[in-house]
Amino acid sequence: MTYCVGLLLNDGMVLLSDTRTNAGLDNISTYKKMFTFEEAGERVITIMTAGSLSVTQTTIAQLHEAMDDPEANAETSIMQAPTMLKVAEIIGRTLCNVRQDIDMKMQAAKVSTSASMIVAGQRKGGGMRMFLIYPEGNFIEATADTPFLQIGEHKYGKPILDRVVRPETTLVDARKAVLLSMDSTLRSNLSVGMPLDMAIIRDGSLTIEESRIEANDPEFTKMSEAWSNALREGFTKIEI
Amino acid sequence: MTYCVGLLLNDGMVLLSDTRTNAGLDNISTYKKMFTFEEAGERVITIMTAGSLSVTQTTIAQLHEAMDDPEANAETSIMQAPTMLKVAEIIGRTLCNVRQDIDMKMQAAKVSTSASMIVAGQRKGGGMRMFLIYPEGNFIEATADTPFLQIGEHKYGKPILDRVVRPETTLVDARKAVLLSMDSTLRSNLSVGMPLDMAIIRDGSLTIEESRIEANDPEFTKMSEAWSNALREGFTKIEI
Repeated sequence: MTYCVGLLLNDGMVLLSDTRTNAGLDNISTYKKMFTFEEAGERVITIMTAGSLSVTQTTIAQLHEAMDDPEANAETSIMQAPTMLKVAEIIGRTLCNVRQDIDMKMQAAKVSTSASMIVAGQRKGGGMRMFLIYPEGNFIEATADTPFLQIGEHKYGKPILDRVVRPETTLVDARKAVLLSMDSTLRSNLSVGMPLDMAIIRDGSLTIEESRIEANDPEFTKMSEAWSNALREGFTKIEI
Repeated sequence: MTYCVGLLLNDGMVLLSDTRTNAGLDNISTYKKMFTFEEAGERVITIMTAGSLSVTQTTIAQLHEAMDDPEANAETSIMQAPTMLKVAEIIGRTLCNVRQDIDMKMQAAKVSTSASMIVAGQRKGGGMRMFLIYPEGNFIEATADTPFLQIGEHKYGKPILDRVVRPETTLVDARKAVLLSMDSTLRSNLSVGMPLDMAIIRDGSLTIEESRIEANDPEFTKMSEAWSNALREGFTKIEI
């Protein structure tokens, strides 16, 4: 499995993904699930992926190929599309085609493939937008009422987001919220694993601040312990 | 869906279930999912159910019928079975038979039914035991290493249990833990709903303390708010 979460806030967008991929329990690998596309000052796009690795890798590869094609245009390249909605449409179409193609090959094995993506981006002069793209290529968009999107193993990490994330949440708090959400998921589900990839896109900056959090990151470990202690203390204090 | 959780602790067993049943989103009802069988001083058994209501109701009805049968014996009646293991076997066999029978009727509709149960009990002279019974009738047992079992919508409420439940947890803390675990589930999943049914079986008491927590229970509401506040405060205090 996978856990990816994206927040769309007034100040910017915060994205976090794990890196564990597994085919069965005894075949575990580390793959980056966050992909950034940046033309500084013009356009930034971050894609996070969940699901069948063969589907997501091929989709990302085809998006790159379409961008690099000499005949690339606003209909085919996510770096030329006129709006973020168009970007989501191109990604959705590519994902759907790849999935159908691989599904057809898998039919004999009676296995079906699936994958979903979170796409976040902004282009010069436009607002920040974030989409969750389903395996069929259709998508939904984050709004002020629902300022976060999740793919993969999303349940363990949802209660903390439900409680603290609002559009006016600061980017510092947002970073903390997604890390704690990931921490709960890491603890309860073996198929989600370190290291983590984080991207922050400040509104209007048109740049992506990327960072990787390694397995023994002292700051993350400290935060994880502090959160465990806070939960236990809170638990002790409640009278019933 | 459903959420049921059972803790097996040194001091006793604590069980909690919700009561929401739904067939689609616009057909929501309240059904008790906790069933108690008690011969005070001799034997206590509590069963919690998740899954297809037609399967669980028929299974419980058949268990009752088998108990009340004039020819009931140690092989057929959970109130006469010589050990809790035998009790789990009888329940598992009944569940499996009912499910297979209903599944056969449903084949034309290409729908398959499923249900699982948590069984907790003690008989005079025996230890407390708790089992999770799968739709196929096989089961696993709670142990000191894994002192809790969950069925239904279990993910939202697992992080708090992972963090605070140990075999030496007191019954007071255990009660708080299952209520907070349920609170997180109620908040994040619409298909789990109040009122709640709770049962406490103190080790060696051979009685079941049952209680129902209604939708506007002031104590539960207060605890839920206190927990939200504790989470938010803990969140605020963490520095990163």
